[in-house]
Amino acid sequence: MTTKTVKELAEHVGGVVHGDQTVPITGAATLNEAGEGDISFLANLKYEKEVQTSRASAIIVSEEADLPDRVLIRCRDPYYAFMQVVVLLYGHREHEKVGISPRASVAANAAIGRDVDIHDFAVVLHDVQIGDNTCIYSNCTIGPGTKIGRDCVLYPNVTIYDGCCIGDRVTIHSGTVVGQDGFGYATHDGVHHKIPQVGGVVIEDDVEIGANCAIDRGTLGDTIIGRGSKLSNLIAIGHNTKIGPYSLLVAQVGIAGSVQVGHHCVFGGQVGVVGHIKIGDQVKIGAQAGVINDVPDKLSVVGSPAWPITQAKRSLTLLKELPEFRKKLRELDKSLRRLIQDG
Amino acid sequence: MTTKTVKELAEHVGGVVHGDQTVPITGAATLNEAGEGDISFLANLKYEKEVQTSRASAIIVSEEADLPDRVLIRCRDPYYAFMQVVVLLYGHREHEKVGISPRASVAANAAIGRDVDIHDFAVVLHDVQIGDNTCIYSNCTIGPGTKIGRDCVLYPNVTIYDGCCIGDRVTIHSGTVVGQDGFGYATHDGVHHKIPQVGGVVIEDDVEIGANCAIDRGTLGDTIIGRGSKLSNLIAIGHNTKIGPYSLLVAQVGIAGSVQVGHHCVFGGQVGVVGHIKIGDQVKIGAQAGVINDVPDKLSVVGSPAWPITQAKRSLTLLKELPEFRKKLRELDKSLRRLIQDG
Amino acid sequence: MTTKTVKELAEHVGGVVHGDQTVPITGAATLNEAGEGDISFLANLKYEKEVQTSRASAIIVSEEADLPDRVLIRCRDPYYAFMQVVVLLYGHREHEKVGISPRASVAANAAIGRDVDIHDFAVVLHDVQIGDNTCIYSNCTIGPGTKIGRDCVLYPNVTIYDGCCIGDRVTIHSGTVVGQDGFGYATHDGVHHKIPQVGGVVIEDDVEIGANCAIDRGTLGDTIIGRGSKLSNLIAIGHNTKIGPYSLLVAQVGIAGSVQVGHHCVFGGQVGVVGHIKIGDQVKIGAQAGVINDVPDKLSVVGSPAWPITQAKRSLTLLKELPEFRKKLRELDKSLRRLIQDG
Repeated sequence: MTTKTVKELAEHVGGVVHGDQTVPITGAATLNEAGEGDISFLANLKYEKEVQTSRASAIIVSEEADLPDRVLIRCRDPYYAFMQVVVLLYGHREHEKVGISPRASVAANAAIGRDVDIHDFAVVLHDVQIGDNTCIYSNCTIGPGTKIGRDCVLYPNVTIYDGCCIGDRVTIHSGTVVGQDGFGYATHDGVHHKIPQVGGVVIEDDVEIGANCAIDRGTLGDTIIGRGSKLSNLIAIGHNTKIGPYSLLVAQVGIAGSVQVGHHCVFGGQVGVVGHIKIGDQVKIGAQAGVINDVPDKLSVVGSPAWPITQAKRSLTLLKELPEFRKKLRELDKSLRRLIQDG
Repeated sequence: MTTKTVKELAEHVGGVVHGDQTVPITGAATLNEAGEGDISFLANLKYEKEVQTSRASAIIVSEEADLPDRVLIRCRDPYYAFMQVVVLLYGHREHEKVGISPRASVAANAAIGRDVDIHDFAVVLHDVQIGDNTCIYSNCTIGPGTKIGRDCVLYPNVTIYDGCCIGDRVTIHSGTVVGQDGFGYATHDGVHHKIPQVGGVVIEDDVEIGANCAIDRGTLGDTIIGRGSKLSNLIAIGHNTKIGPYSLLVAQVGIAGSVQVGHHCVFGGQVGVVGHIKIGDQVKIGAQAGVINDVPDKLSVVGSPAWPITQAKRSLTLLKELPEFRKKLRELDKSLRRLIQDG
Repeated sequence: MTTKTVKELAEHVGGVVHGDQTVPITGAATLNEAGEGDISFLANLKYEKEVQTSRASAIIVSEEADLPDRVLIRCRDPYYAFMQVVVLLYGHREHEKVGISPRASVAANAAIGRDVDIHDFAVVLHDVQIGDNTCIYSNCTIGPGTKIGRDCVLYPNVTIYDGCCIGDRVTIHSGTVVGQDGFGYATHDGVHHKIPQVGGVVIEDDVEIGANCAIDRGTLGDTIIGRGSKLSNLIAIGHNTKIGPYSLLVAQVGIAGSVQVGHHCVFGGQVGVVGHIKIGDQVKIGAQAGVINDVPDKLSVVGSPAWPITQAKRSLTLLKELPEFRKKLRELDKSLRRLIQDG
């Protein structure tokens, strides 16, 4: 950790200081958790109330924010600026340069770049290529013929099967498996016969994948995780599914096989998607939704089966009113009968 | 990859050629993705439209299919025949014969069959038995007293706990754990006391289990995965649950403890099943369903809580009509009031 | 296994024998599965019917149970007593004392307590502290600066990242990952920029975590799993979430970031919880529920989105009656029209 003045931080993020620019900052925290010496941020005005009780020494805010009593850094994108400040104050995790451990198992014909680290008990099989400055942690296995780019990090206990292709600056967290066989069987006379899964997996540049995910290889052709997409933990991606660039998948999402997902989509936690459908660009899917049909660009869907959020909200509200509906129906029925009798 | 003529492929699958039987085939692909030299298949007539635009050089179809302009192989079960062709053209993954690596750790009293491969940094503990021609990949651990049959494959980073029993021709993908303690506690005065989990796990012949699954051992008695059943990725099976033969479980299914599942069941992705219930034979459970009661043989259920698909479809359609219902109720109410007033 | 008389078992659990106290007991089982020589239990009167067909030689029951023909041990908490009997008869799993394997990789400056076992191919990095009598199984990795207390067990293939803190008597099953980076990005001009995750994970005393779970480290500050809480398999816990003591989380639960969970809560399987909410004490959440708002103490909620169980049951029953509703609405409409016409 380092100490910076508010002035220095403002310069770093391209912001404008309001208040005492000499205030020293040693840490970063949310409004609620910040103490003396911490900088915080206000990205969403619905949290403005929390500013009043926050003990933060400075707050990064949007250009129009008006908080006269506080030391502020005003900027266009406060959350992005906060990220820049966190990087400046704390830095990203550093990976010790251990070189290639004599306790790792590296095939003689593997093509290993410069400044690569391969930790104890990692296994790199034949015909593997690993780019410069990549770090393979302990107990990982990299299957035959797999290519890994430069500046990647594979945390302990990751498995990459044979013939996969991983781009540059890819991070894969522990326990994740890439390239296992997809779920493909031809059932004949009640017995399930395995279809060889001879495709691969392509993970493009700047992807990050969380812990204990499972990315199937393609049956024929590849499964693809697009550039800059980020996956959280315990996510299952089926064979031949293609995820476009810059999408976000929250934990425990499951996408079946042969799905096409566009760019800049957001999948909430535990979303499920059936196979062979197409999800457009910039689609938002609410947590636990079950998507069974194509979704056009920019639509927000929720529910299982998933439907447009506006429609869903209306019907779900009415679901709560069902007891009222029944009561009303009975009243109407009674009144009508009486009317008919009387008439 | 090899090249075969359409005639050779037809003979291999017991089909009948329509059109030029000398066409050379070098690959297999779906109708959409096939190019020159590829063979494809049409198993479901709803995809017939895709035949028109497909660039496949030949198509495997059912006996009654009528596609005069294409080179066809007609047969009884096109998808099964396609599987046979894929196996012929590409083969299944081959496992390099490495023998028992000096960098593996194998207990002195382990009974290891002939032609067994144990890769670097795998651990085989005391009293383990491993059958002929089985392959244990790197960084797997096989617990004390566990028996593994012949022709099995355990991919890297699999853990089998103590005292489990795995049949012949079983495949387990990376990261999967078999035999961890089930979730059993007796809560007394607010503290959860662990119940020893002293049962085992039996995985019968010809089972395949995907990546990062977790199969609990039994509390007393065994958890059983029946012969020929196939599990996809990230599946959780609770203690003492018994899954019948030839069932299919799609990714992220969770089955609690002491559930009995019949044969030839199909569980969609993310299905959840509560403990201590009985699911019959040939039951189909839709993705994301939550099963909380016994399900009789051959029934299809969906939804959470799960109910028969026919009933569910009706009510879910009506759920979308709730705004209409409310409108109608109000109109009726208004008309009735007017009528009563007027009367 | 040992043999005990019913008298000895009754004394061990502080119960009172009804019937022949010399009956020898060699095993324990559920009512359904028990045979000659087994002791079983009846904790819930709804299973009383199973007593009649059970072949158990003795049954542990509550103080008021009345089953004249059977050998009984009456006590205050039959399930707790059964657990004590299972421990007495079978014991907990024993961990072979292997010491520190020469095939493990242990940093020179790691502080290792007395009677610690570190198995083959486990990796303990610099500045790690491990308390007395803890067992680290094969292929685990313990990141730099992590502290692990005494009497812990980490099963094979567990990964603990850097700077985590694990209490005493903690058990972590295979494949689980603790301390991977949370899902934190600042999206700017369509690109997701990683926010360094510089917090840690605190796992308090007496916690047990199942297989293949993923516990995110905090962004700033810690993720906490409270004392005596028990997690089953394939559970995802987001960054900075704090789970109170003695809570139970069934398999495949997913809790997003910055959630506060109270003490003695019970989460059913596949429950999802959105970020930044507060779940009170002794809350019960039904399987597959999706919690999107704060839940007050002691409430039971179900459904997605989750609502109080009493309310949900009413509306879900009515959901099944929707076809009836529509029919009734149409009848009313018809009657009314006729009435208006006639009038």
